[in-house]
Amino acid sequence: RHGQAETENQVGVATGLAYTTVGGDTLQIEVSITPGKGKLQLTGKLGDVMKESASIALTYVRSLQEKLQLAADYFDKHDIHIHVPEGAVPKDGPSAGITMTTAIVSAISGKAIRREVGMTGEITLRGRVLPIGGLKEKSLSAHRAGLTTIIIPKDNERDIDDIPESVRHELTFKLVSTAEEVLSAALDGGF
Amino acid sequence: RHGQAETENQVGVATGLAYTTVGGDTLQIEVSITPGKGKLQLTGKLGDVMKESASIALTYVRSLQEKLQLAADYFDKHDIHIHVPEGAVPKDGPSAGITMTTAIVSAISGKAIRREVGMTGEITLRGRVLPIGGLKEKSLSAHRAGLTTIIIPKDNERDIDDIPESVRHELTFKLVSTAEEVLSAALDGGF
Amino acid sequence: RHGQAETENQVGVATGLAYTTVGGDTLQIEVSITPGKGKLQLTGKLGDVMKESASIALTYVRSLQEKLQLAADYFDKHDIHIHVPEGAVPKDGPSAGITMTTAIVSAISGKAIRREVGMTGEITLRGRVLPIGGLKEKSLSAHRAGLTTIIIPKDNERDIDDIPESVRHELTFKLVSTAEEVLSAALDGGF
Amino acid sequence: RHGQAETENQVGVATGLAYTTVGGDTLQIEVSITPGKGKLQLTGKLGDVMKESASIALTYVRSLQEKLQLAADYFDKHDIHIHVPEGAVPKDGPSAGITMTTAIVSAISGKAIRREVGMTGEITLRGRVLPIGGLKEKSLSAHRAGLTTIIIPKDNERDIDDIPESVRHELTFKLVSTAEEVLSAALDGGF
Amino acid sequence: RHGQAETENQVGVATGLAYTTVGGDTLQIEVSITPGKGKLQLTGKLGDVMKESASIALTYVRSLQEKLQLAADYFDKHDIHIHVPEGAVPKDGPSAGITMTTAIVSAISGKAIRREVGMTGEITLRGRVLPIGGLKEKSLSAHRAGLTTIIIPKDNERDIDDIPESVRHELTFKLVSTAEEVLSAALDGGF
Amino acid sequence: RHGQAETENQVGVATGLAYTTVGGDTLQIEVSITPGKGKLQLTGKLGDVMKESASIALTYVRSLQEKLQLAADYFDKHDIHIHVPEGAVPKDGPSAGITMTTAIVSAISGKAIRREVGMTGEITLRGRVLPIGGLKEKSLSAHRAGLTTIIIPKDNERDIDDIPESVRHELTFKLVSTAEEVLSAALDGGF
Ligand SMILES: [Ca+2]
Ligand SMILES: [Ca+2]
Ligand SMILES: [Ca+2]
Ligand SMILES: [Ca+2]
Ligand SMILES: [Ca+2]
Ligand SMILES: [Ca+2]
Ligand SMILES: [Ca+2]
Ligand SMILES: [Ca+2]
Ligand SMILES: [Ca+2]
Ligand SMILES: [Ca+2]
Ligand SMILES: [Ca+2]
Ligand SMILES: [Ca+2]
Repeated sequence: RHGQAETENQVGVATGLAYTTVGGDTLQIEVSITPGKGKLQLTGKLGDVMKESASIALTYVRSLQEKLQLAADYFDKHDIHIHVPEGAVPKDGPSAGITMTTAIVSAISGKAIRREVGMTGEITLRGRVLPIGGLKEKSLSAHRAGLTTIIIPKDNERDIDDIPESVRHELTFKLVSTAEEVLSAALDGGF
Repeated sequence: RHGQAETENQVGVATGLAYTTVGGDTLQIEVSITPGKGKLQLTGKLGDVMKESASIALTYVRSLQEKLQLAADYFDKHDIHIHVPEGAVPKDGPSAGITMTTAIVSAISGKAIRREVGMTGEITLRGRVLPIGGLKEKSLSAHRAGLTTIIIPKDNERDIDDIPESVRHELTFKLVSTAEEVLSAALDGGF
Repeated sequence: RHGQAETENQVGVATGLAYTTVGGDTLQIEVSITPGKGKLQLTGKLGDVMKESASIALTYVRSLQEKLQLAADYFDKHDIHIHVPEGAVPKDGPSAGITMTTAIVSAISGKAIRREVGMTGEITLRGRVLPIGGLKEKSLSAHRAGLTTIIIPKDNERDIDDIPESVRHELTFKLVSTAEEVLSAALDGGF
Repeated sequence: RHGQAETENQVGVATGLAYTTVGGDTLQIEVSITPGKGKLQLTGKLGDVMKESASIALTYVRSLQEKLQLAADYFDKHDIHIHVPEGAVPKDGPSAGITMTTAIVSAISGKAIRREVGMTGEITLRGRVLPIGGLKEKSLSAHRAGLTTIIIPKDNERDIDDIPESVRHELTFKLVSTAEEVLSAALDGGF
Repeated sequence: RHGQAETENQVGVATGLAYTTVGGDTLQIEVSITPGKGKLQLTGKLGDVMKESASIALTYVRSLQEKLQLAADYFDKHDIHIHVPEGAVPKDGPSAGITMTTAIVSAISGKAIRREVGMTGEITLRGRVLPIGGLKEKSLSAHRAGLTTIIIPKDNERDIDDIPESVRHELTFKLVSTAEEVLSAALDGGF
Repeated sequence: RHGQAETENQVGVATGLAYTTVGGDTLQIEVSITPGKGKLQLTGKLGDVMKESASIALTYVRSLQEKLQLAADYFDKHDIHIHVPEGAVPKDGPSAGITMTTAIVSAISGKAIRREVGMTGEITLRGRVLPIGGLKEKSLSAHRAGLTTIIIPKDNERDIDDIPESVRHELTFKLVSTAEEVLSAALDGGF
């Protein structure tokens, strides 16, 4: 099932695009929320930068508390676990920031994520989306996995023409500057 | 007693299949639950990936809270200790994920685990079962230990034909995609 | 958008000036405040000295509690997250001290920061502003990014004449000895 | 007094058998229980495996709570300190597991430990006793120290004939498979 | 302003004398006290010995609770932050002990510290002042910075004659054996 | 004052005897007790074995709670700080165990320690005193410092004849097997 698009829309699972020395790959970001004490748990052999990305994503989502109509103590009364399979493969870098954000909002709100959508982009604390590397390789792997829409940072627009035309024409690119645009494009029914 | 199947069904102890540089081996995953404060304790010289597996397994089980008919504060009021004998032997990797899941559910529910069953498979936060390596060696060691049924990831189906025919014919393979299928096959009386 | 001045005044985001082996750069300091338990969270691959700067800035701001008309338990009831994009770029040094101070006060008070202002300076616990290195390179990058006012430590006055005249004449330098002077110059509407 | 059997039965002190590169040795495991908050403290320059042994022993003993007629919050309201003199000598390995178990139960119950008894064996979470190495050297040191009974894992039965006959005939070997058998043999008055 | 005496008496800031491989230097010890939970925070790139000095100074000051007429829970209800600018310069050693002590007492009591006074000396838990090294270099830097009185350990009396006469005659040396003597000499109005 | 006996009996300060590669030395163990939350703080550049000694000493003293007529929550309501000047000198080893024990009991009970007494010996959890090394060198330094009585482990009796006669005849040796014997000999007025 890895490297393959999901067969139905899922809650709490978003598809990211990774870029390694051996090419692009898709990865799932899974988020599980349980009653708890406000703990953030991170698994999947994540490096320090990726762990920081997760906490940036979480603080950003916490700033949406009113918009998400959450109780004031919601984040104190729940634990959030973010996992990135496969567990033995080391992962790092900031470009899963918007994917983590989307998976967290989906898990919290119960809104499913559109299964044909992949995404890549660094997130900042106030929801800005920063550019990433490896767009070409990431797009190829997204296409290979059967995704049809990929959300990318507006600042990467200039890198789209590096993607082979055959693939480029079968993908829809959503250019985004803010996390709210990401959520609107990725969540089933919008944000 | 090591490398030998149990003589009766046990609660809180599941049999996993390990794969090392010197071949396959069986291992026991023991889970003990005591009144406490929600602490997860891990022993048995476990590497980081295996420790993460345990916390993924636990979060997955926590997501079953209603299905398991547990009080809302069950996991805050109990400590969970997972041990993998033998204590001086280093162990690592994600493939004990479903074994840990099964042992935790058994310990919590009091349902015994079928003693003739061994299992191997990585688990994800939402209960997906991911493929593992070394199926041949693991199957040989399971057979040697007297197990008759082994639960394996559906994505490893293509590796079954690598197992010598004499052994393959004396083992029943349960192919699973989800942790719920694992629990149904492993727990005495089903799930 | 990086290396470019903001297009409008922002709350909780201040522009600092950094100095690396490859020249000057501008960086954003983002601060997000959420209901919480008094936790300080720091992200952006910050080195130890920069992390200490953040906690010095925070203690200094805590000493302004009455002046900021905050409830006595304000800092116990909120979490403060300081992030410095981009997440994969290591950053260190004490010279972002006054920038962090400004971003924290802005986030707490809701007062915007003047978008044309950049700043650099080490802060001490009682709000003294200490001199920094690389003023020339920092000024060039500030100018390149479209900033028109830069706040610098009074003890760096003697370094201004090292900046090329063409740039120097297009920048306004605010010389400061105390954090209060920084806040007066940086906050929209003063302090 | 080291390397010498105690002159009277003691509460909270059990005699273990260690095996080092320079031969066998006896060691004391001391347990002190004080009113507290459920903390486990370990001293005596213990290696990681031995520390894990201590926490396995403690979880096993916690599972005996009802049998030991302890209040439900007994382990939350007491601190347990396990020390292995001599403090400057590094110690490691899992084979003190049953000795730690015995010393903890003795300290909790107030039952003395038979002074002529030494023991060695790894313990698992559910009280299984696993085999150990160095039985010959351990037996010689036990004999030298004046012990007359040694409790050993049933799986080490086959190693007894390696012990010189003169020593073997002066020692009584208790072969055990479970921690309850250990406690029955070691505690003054049984378990 | 560094290496220069303050222009007025300050509360919570004491001047210490440091000794490095490149000679003597003066340094400020800043203390800020805020409502809190009893946390001690240390910044300024301090080494382990200097951090321990700070906690020794704090415990000593806590032993003065009645003398300072502080509420019994004063230290549980306040956070104490000790900072030693400049933040990028590593500092270590025990000789700032009495300077830290003085700055803490000043911050707690609100009594200013005499601006013409510098000091150096290790402190012990019961307020003994132990000798330090580098008195000559420290005295030269104190003199250069415009200080006129320096407080030194009585056990360093024999080192005074190593200081060049021209400097020695412009400095007043206060020889002390106890922290109370330090406080009497350093606090504006005495102790 | 270091290497010199105190001029009067002190509360909370005991004199230990140390043994380094360059000979024997005396050291002070200072203990300060303040209202708090049960924290043990250790300073003086102590190595791991010496830190463990301190916690063994503390647990032993906690076991004396009734004998010392302390409230049941005494150790939860106080912080204990143990410091060994001089702060820049690394110290390690188990032989300060009885000195720490004595200093803690003195600080708790308010009973002074006889100023002419030095001591050395490892302590165990149940108050046994174990032998130490370097008795000759320690005795010479004790004598040099003006001490007249030294408390040593009974198991070191055989090492007394290694001490030069001139020194040996001016020292009184108290041979002890238990911490209670140490306390009786060291505390002013006995135990
Ligand atoms: Ca993959
Ligand atoms: Ca391009
Ligand atoms: Ca095995
Ligand atoms: Ca195949
Ligand atoms: Ca940049
Ligand atoms: Ca100049
Ligand atoms: Ca020994
Ligand atoms: Ca044999
Ligand atoms: Ca300086
Ligand atoms: Ca001299
Ligand atoms: Ca000395
Ligand atoms: Ca001798």
